[in-house]
Amino acid sequence: MTFQDQARAAKAASTVLRRLSRAAKDDALSAMAARLREAARGVLAANAADLERGRAAGMAEGLQDRLRLTEDRIEGMAAGLESLAALPDPVGEVVRGWNTAQGVRIEQVRVPVGVIGIIYEARPNVTADAAGICLKSGNASLLRGSSSALESNRAVISALRAGLVDAGVPADAVNLVEGGHETTQEMMGARGLVDLLIPRGGAGLINAVVGGSTVPVIETGTGNCHLVVDTSADLGMAESIVVNAKTQRPSVCNALETVLVLQGIAEEAVPRLVGALTGAGVAVHGDPASVALDARVVPAGPDEYDAEYLSMDLAMKVVDDLPAALEHIAEHSSGHSETIVTENLESARAFQQSVDAAAVLVNCSSRFVDGGEFGFGAEIGISTQKMHARGPMGLREMTSTSYRLVGTGQVRLG
Amino acid sequence: MTFQDQARAAKAASTVLRRLSRAAKDDALSAMAARLREAARGVLAANAADLERGRAAGMAEGLQDRLRLTEDRIEGMAAGLESLAALPDPVGEVVRGWNTAQGVRIEQVRVPVGVIGIIYEARPNVTADAAGICLKSGNASLLRGSSSALESNRAVISALRAGLVDAGVPADAVNLVEGGHETTQEMMGARGLVDLLIPRGGAGLINAVVGGSTVPVIETGTGNCHLVVDTSADLGMAESIVVNAKTQRPSVCNALETVLVLQGIAEEAVPRLVGALTGAGVAVHGDPASVALDARVVPAGPDEYDAEYLSMDLAMKVVDDLPAALEHIAEHSSGHSETIVTENLESARAFQQSVDAAAVLVNCSSRFVDGGEFGFGAEIGISTQKMHARGPMGLREMTSTSYRLVGTGQVRLG
Repeated sequence: MTFQDQARAAKAASTVLRRLSRAAKDDALSAMAARLREAARGVLAANAADLERGRAAGMAEGLQDRLRLTEDRIEGMAAGLESLAALPDPVGEVVRGWNTAQGVRIEQVRVPVGVIGIIYEARPNVTADAAGICLKSGNASLLRGSSSALESNRAVISALRAGLVDAGVPADAVNLVEGGHETTQEMMGARGLVDLLIPRGGAGLINAVVGGSTVPVIETGTGNCHLVVDTSADLGMAESIVVNAKTQRPSVCNALETVLVLQGIAEEAVPRLVGALTGAGVAVHGDPASVALDARVVPAGPDEYDAEYLSMDLAMKVVDDLPAALEHIAEHSSGHSETIVTENLESARAFQQSVDAAAVLVNCSSRFVDGGEFGFGAEIGISTQKMHARGPMGLREMTSTSYRLVGTGQVRLG
Repeated sequence: MTFQDQARAAKAASTVLRRLSRAAKDDALSAMAARLREAARGVLAANAADLERGRAAGMAEGLQDRLRLTEDRIEGMAAGLESLAALPDPVGEVVRGWNTAQGVRIEQVRVPVGVIGIIYEARPNVTADAAGICLKSGNASLLRGSSSALESNRAVISALRAGLVDAGVPADAVNLVEGGHETTQEMMGARGLVDLLIPRGGAGLINAVVGGSTVPVIETGTGNCHLVVDTSADLGMAESIVVNAKTQRPSVCNALETVLVLQGIAEEAVPRLVGALTGAGVAVHGDPASVALDARVVPAGPDEYDAEYLSMDLAMKVVDDLPAALEHIAEHSSGHSETIVTENLESARAFQQSVDAAAVLVNCSSRFVDGGEFGFGAEIGISTQKMHARGPMGLREMTSTSYRLVGTGQVRLG
């Protein structure tokens, strides 16, 4: 089956999904979960084959870990599908509604997008997750996983499609896209067949999709997150937020990467924060001013303020004042999550008004910027772009809207 | 000044605009209007030069009319800027807000997008309009008009920038982008400097921008709009809606292009609608079934259901039933505005649930699908795409959102 045929089949399925009731979608999700549990043994065998192939090709240990499925992980995937069934249906929600002067009723209503393509790396659990989120929001999915997870993805998708058929929903609602690099290219150029592409993975993957795609793309992911310690900060609070934001899970996009300390409080704050961080196992890299204030700080290289560490490392810098901190953030931020610790109302206000990011925080940890913590119940990623969806994306962000007008024969007069 | 320099200047101005109060923006809009009125004579002279150049190059009469400015049109542009000042500020509006279990306050707030590029054809009134809408929504604008309107646009922009300076707002909030085709290319590739591109014009322009751009694009414009006459329709109502939707302003995107008549009512409906339409000066092109029912119907060519007439012509087709009508629409619609005339609740419901378009109407004219009729007060265009904004785009659609979190020291526990 060519990609075009597959995309057309997905589009045909999407016209059925668009009209499904919540109950029909929830039944399908439950059936998908049941089939996935049933297929666990086969999925594990397929995954073992992928892992064997990966090891033979010298795949890094960390990538093998992402690729690896276990009984627990498969159970997690199934439970995830069931938890989607328990969430409210985003389709049909009225965003706004009003009556015009002539008495026409207008409602802006959430509707499915149509066909959504997900391009992702070697994590087979994303396959079930993305398929479920798309289905619940009434969208057909074209899932383009990594070739290194091909056997695992085939086994997972086969189970999910069996569940769809059990529930009387077209199997083409969920599709695995196979094939080489040309297929990815076709997917990125499939305007009219694919309504939205979401790349999930590293910066390289995301940039390739954004740069090469004529289909609309939502970028997810990179988070070069800053925290500003204001002169008015409660340093006990700053300490616990900095340690939490850096160490609670250093490998994720909402983890803290850089601390900017205002000059006026640096003498007290730098040693205290460095003490807490090093005590928690973090290596602090800093500018000359930070190094001068605490010998445990190692000098930061020239590029260390520009990229995510995603590790137990943190960059520190002493800045003159809040405007200087804002300037540093404007220059280096990836637009994900930016935090200030302050007791001063005007500093908090100025920070939240000035910083251009998906999330701007006062006195709490950037680790809260997450679909689960936001209460969305499901998350397809965290958008760092400005159009359509910005920040954590749940079911609602997987919808478009349509205006529904109902009249009694009104025509336009002027 | 290179395009890059200009875009960087716009970006710098956007960081000031982001923080401006409503009063500051409204003062600037008033000052822009005042300067535009003052400059009317110079603008008319510049416009006369553009028109002279156009005539010499054999510009079509219709294009000359779009390019032409008059005292009234300039007054209209100034009044348009003042009416923007009277509208509420979309920036700062809280879309949603809630408290998390741990007591963190989360608000999703409207914020400016940043720098918006508008690429448009030879209509100098768009220059003032787009500049004003961008400014009111807190965005800097890069206005790329047609080279055939260059002198007019220079004169208009010069007046608008003088108004900005009068009001103490950076002049680089509004910019005219000059230069050849390479400049348009640069604009479409200026990720990181330009946040959003909106092409306003014909299908050729829009497709070129969508296909060539790595900056996010919102498509506006083409409307191949259908109206379905259900077997239960009140034919008096159908007649007045069809005539209004087709003839009230045939050249615009929300005008009606195709009428689909259900077989069960065709014998009565076709002659009645054709009579009303031909009486109003419309030429009806139809399929063999329509031609058989009324001799005034001329046979439609094979492509007549695929494109907009944008003229006093209309395509008619007799279809078996509602599913056949939905299928025709799914195949031929440009996703703008689709209408059914019916007295049957289930037909209305099925139609609104099934049709995938920016607006889906029951028993009223598609001419209502318009920012002015919706009460938006301003309109930058009508989006026919599904991401970010769909349907008429007012000030709200020119914003992004940001999540603002305020805590009292909370850290993430699990």
